[in-house]
Amino acid sequence: MPTFKPDELCRIGREIYEQIGASPEEAETVANLLVDANLAGHDSHGVVRIPQYVSAIKRGQIKLGTSPEIEKETAATAIVNGHWGFGHVTAKAAMEVAIEKARETAVGIVTVHQCNHIGRLGAYTPLAVDAGMAGLITNNGHGADRSMAPFGGLGRILPASCMAVAFPSDRDFPVALDLTAAAAAGGKMRVALARGEKVPEGWLMTADGQPTNEPGDYVNGSASLVPFGGHKGYGLGIVFDILSGAFSPAGCTREKSPVTGNALFIQAIRIDAFVAMDEFTSEVGRFIDYVKASDNAPGFDEILMPGERSWRNQVDREANGIVIEDKTWTEICDVAQELNVKV
Amino acid sequence: MPTFKPDELCRIGREIYEQIGASPEEAETVANLLVDANLAGHDSHGVVRIPQYVSAIKRGQIKLGTSPEIEKETAATAIVNGHWGFGHVTAKAAMEVAIEKARETAVGIVTVHQCNHIGRLGAYTPLAVDAGMAGLITNNGHGADRSMAPFGGLGRILPASCMAVAFPSDRDFPVALDLTAAAAAGGKMRVALARGEKVPEGWLMTADGQPTNEPGDYVNGSASLVPFGGHKGYGLGIVFDILSGAFSPAGCTREKSPVTGNALFIQAIRIDAFVAMDEFTSEVGRFIDYVKASDNAPGFDEILMPGERSWRNQVDREANGIVIEDKTWTEICDVAQELNVKV
Repeated sequence: MPTFKPDELCRIGREIYEQIGASPEEAETVANLLVDANLAGHDSHGVVRIPQYVSAIKRGQIKLGTSPEIEKETAATAIVNGHWGFGHVTAKAAMEVAIEKARETAVGIVTVHQCNHIGRLGAYTPLAVDAGMAGLITNNGHGADRSMAPFGGLGRILPASCMAVAFPSDRDFPVALDLTAAAAAGGKMRVALARGEKVPEGWLMTADGQPTNEPGDYVNGSASLVPFGGHKGYGLGIVFDILSGAFSPAGCTREKSPVTGNALFIQAIRIDAFVAMDEFTSEVGRFIDYVKASDNAPGFDEILMPGERSWRNQVDREANGIVIEDKTWTEICDVAQELNVKV
Repeated sequence: MPTFKPDELCRIGREIYEQIGASPEEAETVANLLVDANLAGHDSHGVVRIPQYVSAIKRGQIKLGTSPEIEKETAATAIVNGHWGFGHVTAKAAMEVAIEKARETAVGIVTVHQCNHIGRLGAYTPLAVDAGMAGLITNNGHGADRSMAPFGGLGRILPASCMAVAFPSDRDFPVALDLTAAAAAGGKMRVALARGEKVPEGWLMTADGQPTNEPGDYVNGSASLVPFGGHKGYGLGIVFDILSGAFSPAGCTREKSPVTGNALFIQAIRIDAFVAMDEFTSEVGRFIDYVKASDNAPGFDEILMPGERSWRNQVDREANGIVIEDKTWTEICDVAQELNVKV
């Protein structure tokens, strides 16, 4: 499996998207965010998507030549219409609107519709952190993307909606949570199937409500994801769906949705409206140290804070490069060749 | 076990607190919120607390004659100092500040410190719902109240921090989530111990990291609560702690805290800044119907939305009265007699 410097993957992604007609700015945004996912260790949201997005452009799901547009706003809020451009471009622009609003009013909330898939939600919260703010983002499947059973129910009724939150600290990394309401994301079933592995008990349920650890049951559409933590993860999924779907024109999840994508709820909170920035970051830093100093449970070498593993992956991969699976690399090469991009 | 009309319990609570020196307004607020918890079925946060708060007043933990004070504010944000008055009074006042700010700026965020325990977090989010808003509240233990192990760790390091969120709907009840980051709240261990029952696997861990289903191991201080859903519930607990503790002067959880109480993060979001109120409530109503129409899993009679069970409890108890355990009623009678309140 080949290993690449992050910059080289960014260049390849950027040139592919430019060649197929994206503007230099959007090509760069999307390519960088995909590589960012690889750096964080979320390879399922990384450059594996380059050929997929090329297909999505060809079939008109991702519309080039559109720009995110503020449809409605107050000093602290906005609704952004992504006009079905790149989801990554829309989400980044919307977080930037939230941050600008929070500069003025201490809090900015932006909801988003007509937005394609945005990849890893945890890619956008650091924009708020870099601006001295806390960042939050939730999604639903823009009414679609149904993959998870409700607690007490059967079948694919809800999407595996997600939430990411991040706070600055004065330690090496921000505290950054990025979770789905499902026990595990659907992408993990595809990885397990490709590797011929079973998945842990508690991730999947068959159509008649029996547990299964066969990832193929999910990939073939017969099994459903299960919410994490029973009624609690289910309840969080409902909350993410309402925040993302009912506060935007996209709507919550439904039986038949004409489109698929991500509706979003994005929030930035300016920390110094509450406490001085250095007091906040040192308090979060102290809290990190305090929690990590706890004794380890049997089978654990250390206690990790939310976001610490992604940060370590990033340090490691920036230094040692990103390993790309052969199949993924072949697919990227095929697209690159077709578009006359040198790899 | 005696059964009471809610109004009668409100009167008894109000008169007890007035007799010990609370103002009529604060006596009414606290008594009503305690009965509100009984109505919702959360008896551990209900009138069982009447004698406990009388004790807390006597030993100076709850300070009478103080009022919540806005220490710092912007158009959209405030920090409220509860000056260690009744936690319920402080939390209600702080939610009202958040709602007032959201009337003007669409979003209001209020953090709170020097606040005693506020009881059930889900008691405050309906204030926002009644004002045409979404409400959110998180807490920590004001740096203390340590009861839960971190994921991968041992011992009582974190509090069982909580979050409540509520959204209006056009159906009979709002969608209202109220959860703790722990697999179960500590109060359930006391109830189980009193009843001589074991608790389910996965709620508790001994000091050396072994599972236990003996609630006495928790009540005697040797066992810890376990986060729900492993690293995800743990991560949520960290997020609630930072929101409540680092955005207020209270601080996050620490090894030695001089005080105990609840630091709070409270948010109100005005819905019509985003979509028309009737569109929002009918979309949430449609979503409720859609989810509830799913097929039931084996062992389930129906699918409940977050907040639906509390709402049913309320309808039932308003009609049929609130049953109070004999021991609780005896304790209330003792305090009432001491303070010349007729029961």
